[in-house]
Amino acid sequence: MLGQRARLGKLGRGAVSEVRIGLIGAGWMGKAHAVAYRNVPMVFGPEPAVPALEMVADVNPAWAEAAARNLGFTRWTTDWQEVVADPQVDVVDITAPNDVHHDIALAALAAGTPVYCEKPLANPAAETRAMAAAAAAAGVPTLVGFNYLKNPAHPFARELIRAGELGAITLFRGTFDQDLQSDPEFPFTWRHERAVAGSGALGDMGSHALAFAQYLVGDLAEVCGMADTYIRERPLAASGTGQSARAGAGAARRAVENDDVAQFLIRFENGAIGTIGTSRIGTGRKMGLTYEIQGINGALFFTQERMNELNLYRHTDRPGERGYKTLFLAPEYPGYAAFHPIPGNALGYNDQKIIEARELICAIAERRPAEPDFAFGHKITQAIDAVQKSIEERRWVRVDEV
Amino acid sequence: MLGQRARLGKLGRGAVSEVRIGLIGAGWMGKAHAVAYRNVPMVFGPEPAVPALEMVADVNPAWAEAAARNLGFTRWTTDWQEVVADPQVDVVDITAPNDVHHDIALAALAAGTPVYCEKPLANPAAETRAMAAAAAAAGVPTLVGFNYLKNPAHPFARELIRAGELGAITLFRGTFDQDLQSDPEFPFTWRHERAVAGSGALGDMGSHALAFAQYLVGDLAEVCGMADTYIRERPLAASGTGQSARAGAGAARRAVENDDVAQFLIRFENGAIGTIGTSRIGTGRKMGLTYEIQGINGALFFTQERMNELNLYRHTDRPGERGYKTLFLAPEYPGYAAFHPIPGNALGYNDQKIIEARELICAIAERRPAEPDFAFGHKITQAIDAVQKSIEERRWVRVDEV
Amino acid sequence: MLGQRARLGKLGRGAVSEVRIGLIGAGWMGKAHAVAYRNVPMVFGPEPAVPALEMVADVNPAWAEAAARNLGFTRWTTDWQEVVADPQVDVVDITAPNDVHHDIALAALAAGTPVYCEKPLANPAAETRAMAAAAAAAGVPTLVGFNYLKNPAHPFARELIRAGELGAITLFRGTFDQDLQSDPEFPFTWRHERAVAGSGALGDMGSHALAFAQYLVGDLAEVCGMADTYIRERPLAASGTGQSARAGAGAARRAVENDDVAQFLIRFENGAIGTIGTSRIGTGRKMGLTYEIQGINGALFFTQERMNELNLYRHTDRPGERGYKTLFLAPEYPGYAAFHPIPGNALGYNDQKIIEARELICAIAERRPAEPDFAFGHKITQAIDAVQKSIEERRWVRVDEV
Amino acid sequence: MLGQRARLGKLGRGAVSEVRIGLIGAGWMGKAHAVAYRNVPMVFGPEPAVPALEMVADVNPAWAEAAARNLGFTRWTTDWQEVVADPQVDVVDITAPNDVHHDIALAALAAGTPVYCEKPLANPAAETRAMAAAAAAAGVPTLVGFNYLKNPAHPFARELIRAGELGAITLFRGTFDQDLQSDPEFPFTWRHERAVAGSGALGDMGSHALAFAQYLVGDLAEVCGMADTYIRERPLAASGTGQSARAGAGAARRAVENDDVAQFLIRFENGAIGTIGTSRIGTGRKMGLTYEIQGINGALFFTQERMNELNLYRHTDRPGERGYKTLFLAPEYPGYAAFHPIPGNALGYNDQKIIEARELICAIAERRPAEPDFAFGHKITQAIDAVQKSIEERRWVRVDEV
Repeated sequence: MLGQRARLGKLGRGAVSEVRIGLIGAGWMGKAHAVAYRNVPMVFGPEPAVPALEMVADVNPAWAEAAARNLGFTRWTTDWQEVVADPQVDVVDITAPNDVHHDIALAALAAGTPVYCEKPLANPAAETRAMAAAAAAAGVPTLVGFNYLKNPAHPFARELIRAGELGAITLFRGTFDQDLQSDPEFPFTWRHERAVAGSGALGDMGSHALAFAQYLVGDLAEVCGMADTYIRERPLAASGTGQSARAGAGAARRAVENDDVAQFLIRFENGAIGTIGTSRIGTGRKMGLTYEIQGINGALFFTQERMNELNLYRHTDRPGERGYKTLFLAPEYPGYAAFHPIPGNALGYNDQKIIEARELICAIAERRPAEPDFAFGHKITQAIDAVQKSIEERRWVRVDEV
Repeated sequence: MLGQRARLGKLGRGAVSEVRIGLIGAGWMGKAHAVAYRNVPMVFGPEPAVPALEMVADVNPAWAEAAARNLGFTRWTTDWQEVVADPQVDVVDITAPNDVHHDIALAALAAGTPVYCEKPLANPAAETRAMAAAAAAAGVPTLVGFNYLKNPAHPFARELIRAGELGAITLFRGTFDQDLQSDPEFPFTWRHERAVAGSGALGDMGSHALAFAQYLVGDLAEVCGMADTYIRERPLAASGTGQSARAGAGAARRAVENDDVAQFLIRFENGAIGTIGTSRIGTGRKMGLTYEIQGINGALFFTQERMNELNLYRHTDRPGERGYKTLFLAPEYPGYAAFHPIPGNALGYNDQKIIEARELICAIAERRPAEPDFAFGHKITQAIDAVQKSIEERRWVRVDEV
Repeated sequence: MLGQRARLGKLGRGAVSEVRIGLIGAGWMGKAHAVAYRNVPMVFGPEPAVPALEMVADVNPAWAEAAARNLGFTRWTTDWQEVVADPQVDVVDITAPNDVHHDIALAALAAGTPVYCEKPLANPAAETRAMAAAAAAAGVPTLVGFNYLKNPAHPFARELIRAGELGAITLFRGTFDQDLQSDPEFPFTWRHERAVAGSGALGDMGSHALAFAQYLVGDLAEVCGMADTYIRERPLAASGTGQSARAGAGAARRAVENDDVAQFLIRFENGAIGTIGTSRIGTGRKMGLTYEIQGINGALFFTQERMNELNLYRHTDRPGERGYKTLFLAPEYPGYAAFHPIPGNALGYNDQKIIEARELICAIAERRPAEPDFAFGHKITQAIDAVQKSIEERRWVRVDEV
Repeated sequence: MLGQRARLGKLGRGAVSEVRIGLIGAGWMGKAHAVAYRNVPMVFGPEPAVPALEMVADVNPAWAEAAARNLGFTRWTTDWQEVVADPQVDVVDITAPNDVHHDIALAALAAGTPVYCEKPLANPAAETRAMAAAAAAAGVPTLVGFNYLKNPAHPFARELIRAGELGAITLFRGTFDQDLQSDPEFPFTWRHERAVAGSGALGDMGSHALAFAQYLVGDLAEVCGMADTYIRERPLAASGTGQSARAGAGAARRAVENDDVAQFLIRFENGAIGTIGTSRIGTGRKMGLTYEIQGINGALFFTQERMNELNLYRHTDRPGERGYKTLFLAPEYPGYAAFHPIPGNALGYNDQKIIEARELICAIAERRPAEPDFAFGHKITQAIDAVQKSIEERRWVRVDEV
């Protein structure tokens, strides 16, 4: 805590406090973070603090240097350890590949530095358990980049649920389908390799649906899943490693090692049940991240394809007037008013990331936990591991087994 | 076969052939059948045969007599065996309670008479297996009243699937949610009693979602389910036994014996996987009978709440124009043109039943199998039993285990 | 009135009263009426009276005879005057071509017989004015077949408006688009001939949108319209005269004489304003009969393409929960409960006609006015004539000018 | 042209060219422009030029100074003439009140400086005619801030139309309804004062619907409108002057001087017809800016409430598969790919403004016209004036009359 307090002391020196960012990873997501930081004070104003782009690290020096120049970081390095060790860095922001999240985060937390880490926090659950424990021990804010949670629709929805307006929750039905990889010629990338990515759609996409379940309904008790791979081999990529990768003509093919489609049953600690399904070859869905939550007195439906709409049903409405209501984001939804003074002006995907960056800045400046933190991120990884185990062993698995 | 041929011989004598109906059960569904029969020739014309309301049976003589008078049956009886034995009856139509379906159907089939039976065909699977075997042995048409299948949207959808236009099917996601029983004061009826109804939402409603799965994708291989009851006791009914039952003030309460909500994983013989979920306390949904079917090249979405719309996605459309298309029923959809010469005129729930009755009449007159037949009905019961077993034993169950 | 009273006296003699129908016109719509009559007692029960198919007339003796046989009329004739003169006929039902509505209706009303007439009542307004006056003088029920009004959604909507729940109405926006005739090869029929049909889309389709305006908001004060014809000539029909007409190969072409598209401004007597638009080449719309009604405190939206849904907005809902709610037809909507005891079971187009026929039977049996009556039908024709005049003279026209 | 060439010469001096912004007006919209400029290179990259925030002017020195500090302008002033005269300013960006647009723009154009001006360009049409003429004479890029046009959906839509894929256009139906002012206690602001704002909803909101008509279908020939005011007086504002203004308790009331609701008929030069309607008390609509465009072979539908969706209908699809398709923004839509590499990630309102700012920067750097330019802006004002004239004189008015 000492380290953080010292920094926050520093923050108090100027007219406007700063939170100095040390970004690790200068790829697409690193850029997205930098853009978000720069928008935070423009959208929300300078209070309680403004982000300062202090330092960027990437193993590729050209990327690191370009990021510093184009995105406006003061310094750059190829060694993430320099970021972690730097006294001018108030928060370590990890957008590097998943397999280094664990080591970086532990090092930063050991130094008492707040950490902002992209999802998935890490895997397997053994790693995230250690990360959550380190965060608890350090007593500094941590934040995991489940950016879809930052849509103002969801805190509004959670408030309704917590206030009991839907009654006891009985059912959660979540999906995340995208048809981006439906084309059998979409190339083999790291996402299809078990040693690197772990599971396929299950972890990469299902984690977002699980995040909604955790955020809105609560802890999972047990799961039972199934999965399959339908495009059994893919051509090697000629260019790109991410979602815009392309295969070359006549490329060699490699067997896909993880799931295209995964579906699983869930039971929450509070007694609600449900299903979550995900497919990376989910034809018809471009951003089919959805949830339906049914309670005794009401229900909610949301799809990321229409991220500006929350659908609310109240069974307590008078007979003849019971139906789903389509609510557009409005100033009553947490975070929206900073963007627009009136309802109906759309937020976009990038705006979610701005709200997320704002949460980080505020938590650090206000010396309070950020949300969702490492403990939350661990629960998601734990759930994914439990589903994976249930698939392999063809049985129900309690989440606390893993 | 002799019996049937003889009857079909009789049918040929007049200017217009008749199929003479022997209806067993004079309640709400019996009336619905009678209404459907009377509409068949008005909507479709007199060919290939017209239904004749020959005889109605009900254990309650007042109901039987009233049905004969109001619905126009020539004769009535309180003894279903008279219907089965009657040489003037070309088809035995069973709308009596589920627990007598088996005995009546076997008797009719033994007499070589075609049988039209409301869903669920029967339970457990041991009974429906016998019924399907008897139907096969008799070689006469049988038909099970899964009326939602009769919407012209579904044969159109199946044709697309069978023609390979969606490619290999990867995912089936089905639901049937209704919030009719969300009110804890909705009374205890036979549907909540295990000895009478078997499972709760699973069998009563899930059977319809399973029927879509079977009809559109094919045979199930294995299932794994979960279920729970959230409204643990209900007041005894003061009036009514069906969906419009009402509890009296201060009524005694009885423990609910079967599931309010059931969710299960499915694997098809052809390799597709998926989930089916159902809730009789499914807030927000009035007729939430839906399916989403994803194939490598396309997808379909349907909800009974908008039964005049089939949503079709073709991944083979050119980039930038890939999206779900909303198709309204039109003359190209099997059965629609008899109702309306132009697209966009809505069919209703009752029209489904008219199409179903038409299927019965045609199958008998044309001496061909009807669809869905007893073999189909048996598969649905078998699947429900397998899900129930999987719930009880908390494990995957192959459908052919039951 | 004497004639009617005498008939109603006769109705009282049997166990169940009858209303004996004399149908004039044995085409598609005549059949639709007959089907509706036969369904009325099946859906609604025998009270207060049941329709009896007494007599059918058509100038084509083969059609008249076939209708009697297939639809179950007791007698047939080729002379509509016999129907009007027959003492066994309790109501004259006119589905004959529009140009004979006036003469038949006047003859029936002169005889004191209730009249049920398909829309449009007649044109021009001079004729409908005489018909409305004759109806008022006769003091017997009249009914015009604006069947879309019979959807239970609309009386429910009107009740909300009349109860002031939407506040003062400010805007009515109505459309009726169908793309049935978008194909330039759709043939020339009577609908395209000014001497027979009058206006094109304006009268044929716009009348339905006007009927919603009249029914839900009230009397129009003035209108100003525009129209155009985009498919300037069409091939002559080889078969059919209605919506399923087909042109022959190499058919001669004839110039279209009335509007494909018409749009007009409206001002109501109560101060609300708005627009109505219609197109018979309205690509994208299969049954695009819609209305949006805005009041100070709320709004309604409806489209016939989703005829089972009424969309309701209440500006009095709490901030953050103000949005359109989708309401499915339910037992609280007038007429629905006779079809289904629970919400969410769809009604279809034909069910609207059953409700309409029921209205006729009840009005006659209960000796009360039917709705919408000839006075209503006259207002619609008057509005159409006013729009037509405004188009021709390129100016605002008060409805009472015509 | 000399002035501009000189500046573009300057742009070429550095590694990355700059376009130096001189912003006039430091209110809400000025901030929105500044935010957009800063995002342009982050989203699109540094080519062909990056915006530099050179100078900001506001009559209120505190606002000017705060804007310079918070938004990062190098210099500030209270005198817009300094901006116009400054050799370091490559483009004059006008977000000052509407009544000074004309003078500033003419001064800037006289100096050969490109101008970016918020909508409405000005009014009446006499002023915008002069501005368009000045722009033509200066030969430098001009841009009007109709930001809704910048959604990638619309250039995609226009390309379809221009390629003839919808066939000849027959109908344009546009709306812009918002219920922000439905509350009678929403205060009187400058928008309700005729001398300041001109018309009410007609100009303020209808201009956006007109911009869609102009952009997608083309020049208007004539119009005929109507309008009314339903909330006749409003309390004076205690705070705020824009959409978030609030009235004080017991505030005095002032009569509203312009239209709450306006509806008008339009005829395009190319023969299409249609309607446009707008209401600032349009209950149920939060951002009800919509268009429906019907052509002989297809149709488009769009609503700003779902700004990430373009609905496309092709009548040339095979029968049975003709329906509206919902297309989510995707990399094929101009401008989208800079934000996201995959379809389905939502753009928001602010992203439109980034695309607009990008258009300005590119046009200046590439020495090409920007779109929509002053000639376009003049046409919109001209149309509004023609509608206003038609309302006052209750007659059709040709757009070139004003």
